[in-house]
Amino acid sequence: MKTVKVGICGFGTVGSGTFNVLTRNAAEIAARVGADIEIAQIGARRDNPNCSTGDIPVSRDVFAVAENPEIDIVVELMGGTTVARELVMKAIENGKHVVTANKALIAEYGNEIFAAAAERGVSVAFEAAVAGGIPIIKALREGLAGNKVQWLAGIINGTGNFILTEMKEKGRDFADVLAEAQALGYAEADPTFDVEGIDAAHKLVILASLAFGIPLQFDKVFTEGISKIAPEDVNYAEQLGYRIKHLGIARDTGKGIELRVHPTLIPEKRLIANVNGVMNAVLVQSDAVGPTLYYGAGAGSEPTASAVVADIVDVARTLSAEPEHRVPHLAFRLESLSNHPVLPIEEVETAYYLRMSAQDRPGVLSKIAQILSDEGISVEALIQKEPVEGQDHVPMIILTNRTIEGKLSAAVESIQQLDAINGKVTRIRVESLAG
Amino acid sequence: MKTVKVGICGFGTVGSGTFNVLTRNAAEIAARVGADIEIAQIGARRDNPNCSTGDIPVSRDVFAVAENPEIDIVVELMGGTTVARELVMKAIENGKHVVTANKALIAEYGNEIFAAAAERGVSVAFEAAVAGGIPIIKALREGLAGNKVQWLAGIINGTGNFILTEMKEKGRDFADVLAEAQALGYAEADPTFDVEGIDAAHKLVILASLAFGIPLQFDKVFTEGISKIAPEDVNYAEQLGYRIKHLGIARDTGKGIELRVHPTLIPEKRLIANVNGVMNAVLVQSDAVGPTLYYGAGAGSEPTASAVVADIVDVARTLSAEPEHRVPHLAFRLESLSNHPVLPIEEVETAYYLRMSAQDRPGVLSKIAQILSDEGISVEALIQKEPVEGQDHVPMIILTNRTIEGKLSAAVESIQQLDAINGKVTRIRVESLAG
Repeated sequence: MKTVKVGICGFGTVGSGTFNVLTRNAAEIAARVGADIEIAQIGARRDNPNCSTGDIPVSRDVFAVAENPEIDIVVELMGGTTVARELVMKAIENGKHVVTANKALIAEYGNEIFAAAAERGVSVAFEAAVAGGIPIIKALREGLAGNKVQWLAGIINGTGNFILTEMKEKGRDFADVLAEAQALGYAEADPTFDVEGIDAAHKLVILASLAFGIPLQFDKVFTEGISKIAPEDVNYAEQLGYRIKHLGIARDTGKGIELRVHPTLIPEKRLIANVNGVMNAVLVQSDAVGPTLYYGAGAGSEPTASAVVADIVDVARTLSAEPEHRVPHLAFRLESLSNHPVLPIEEVETAYYLRMSAQDRPGVLSKIAQILSDEGISVEALIQKEPVEGQDHVPMIILTNRTIEGKLSAAVESIQQLDAINGKVTRIRVESLAG
Repeated sequence: MKTVKVGICGFGTVGSGTFNVLTRNAAEIAARVGADIEIAQIGARRDNPNCSTGDIPVSRDVFAVAENPEIDIVVELMGGTTVARELVMKAIENGKHVVTANKALIAEYGNEIFAAAAERGVSVAFEAAVAGGIPIIKALREGLAGNKVQWLAGIINGTGNFILTEMKEKGRDFADVLAEAQALGYAEADPTFDVEGIDAAHKLVILASLAFGIPLQFDKVFTEGISKIAPEDVNYAEQLGYRIKHLGIARDTGKGIELRVHPTLIPEKRLIANVNGVMNAVLVQSDAVGPTLYYGAGAGSEPTASAVVADIVDVARTLSAEPEHRVPHLAFRLESLSNHPVLPIEEVETAYYLRMSAQDRPGVLSKIAQILSDEGISVEALIQKEPVEGQDHVPMIILTNRTIEGKLSAAVESIQQLDAINGKVTRIRVESLAG
């Protein structure tokens, strides 16, 4: 049996997971590929105390792996976008195939990386970059290849979903759960990437390119985090039959592509509304198959390694194949990518949950309804709480029908100027996710 | 751009769906494949009044398609295992690639078909044979290629799931819902294939081969239908925190492979327990990634066509590639398939729900508990109903821990011989589906 030689660059959580999976399941993998996958070199600045690498040569210089003439596939698991980018470009330049789990790298520099890879006739595989072990890249690029994708919506950050699940199930507040998530190791010391949606935006950009055949455009994603979600919003959502999830949403409206990450009320009966804890799921609506959903672990050592190894298997199988026999990096062939515009958030169409503190006297509701109506927005549901003794303001919650964000913003601006309204109006977008 | 020529054999629901998807999404598909997919011939005994085929030559003899020297890919969408089998073998003999949606054909004759295809160097693709438009074949063969699969459990018959969902949500009985399903066109006039689990068994056999690297062994599946599920079982299950689903389950126990289709109590909090109506889902537990779930439409014209077209795209892309660059038909290379035995149902390990009609007097429960205990079976939960006035028997429901089916059968035999027990003991298997 022939041997395919891989070099692993970066030997932290995912690197050691990849090492362990390739080693433990070597026989099954060889029986699938028809070749032995040999880890021929590891590039890592330091040893991993949790993973012994035996006789495998370890280089402190990751570039030595990209320069090693024996290596067929360079596996980039370092993270970051500076050294990782240089390494991937060097590996491509040297005619090596690349497997990476690096979502930031693909989202921000994928266009140039794929162009270089196409020129050199090599593959760059990145299944692990989105939703960890869920084979969602493969589903979008290949499994749904007969479809026009209409929209997709994903829970693609486990930390955020863990926080929202705890807030819902235990009535806890955001800061409290975040502190626990940090203690458990789910959240980084600087949680901005996770809770402000930057990590999800990286993944969404990749999914949207595969779904709609557009270049990667990370700078055009609208991103809103979950740090402002209050426990009462979680409660009111529940009373209305909804759950709050932090979703990455991409939609082809015909006029352009919506690309947005934000907290979203979704009907509790949807399967994706019941994806809890650190788990990830992506719901894809397509014209032929209708809705399909893909669920699994979105992070972690071996779940991510599962995707890395699947990529290694794919690349190993087509190592000596002509490039035309491989699946295009962004699902569509480079020359077929479209210049469909990404819509600014003001032009996005969605429904809204509004919460405000309103004076409890006749006429207030009618004023609010008039302002909404002037913008063409109608009210789908309303909760107005009984006043607590001694308080003259009560919480008022409104669900609107679908409208354009710009109109909603104008209405909210006017509502906030009413004397009867205290402070700011809280707004959370609402999606039915109906097929 | 080059052209790949396909011939569609069978022009009913799925055939016309495939025609429609290939025609409507031709531009997107070509941009993915790098080739135009041309429907060069249709073989069908009669026209489809719902689908106009324009200028495409139609032959009344499907074998004319397999003999047509212009055709690259024969798409078999006729169903059945007689003419379809001959057609597929003829197409392979003529060096054509094959795409089929025919689960019975693959489950019962796949071994001989794949052997012939390997010998001739052609592909036989069958994504549409399991769970319609869900890309589950691709997920198992490629997406999870780094994993050892431990078990899988699927809702893989939409008719059965529709019936169980209606029974649960509306308290209706089996016969009543079945009649409605037949009126709606979900169920065939002869519903045996669906409700007795034969259709699910065909699909399970295919999934199990891909997961565990064993040959297709349809004759070894244990199959039990849903026709004996009573409304009270649905209710008691709910009281115990469970839902009843008709599952296909395959598990590698180390001693052998379990292959079984039967009604199953599963915890209501599992995502798959919330897959309702005609929808399908497959839950796969693997060693590296843990649990992953795949959800979507398991039948219907365009959902099934979605899978057929994905296969056409895969085959078209590797048309001129060496066979070694293609994914093996059964995930593992033919020479690597194992002879791991399939376990008889008596050796299967699972937990049980038992319902019996017991005399309401002291000592009965202790006798039952003693019989179970003598077989090493302990009781996890018990419901004993208050007697209705004038009746001396009450329903007694027992959940057992996990045991070997043979032992449970012996215990049930003994319980049925007790004077205090009226009639037969109802048994339904219980799975936690925990990762």
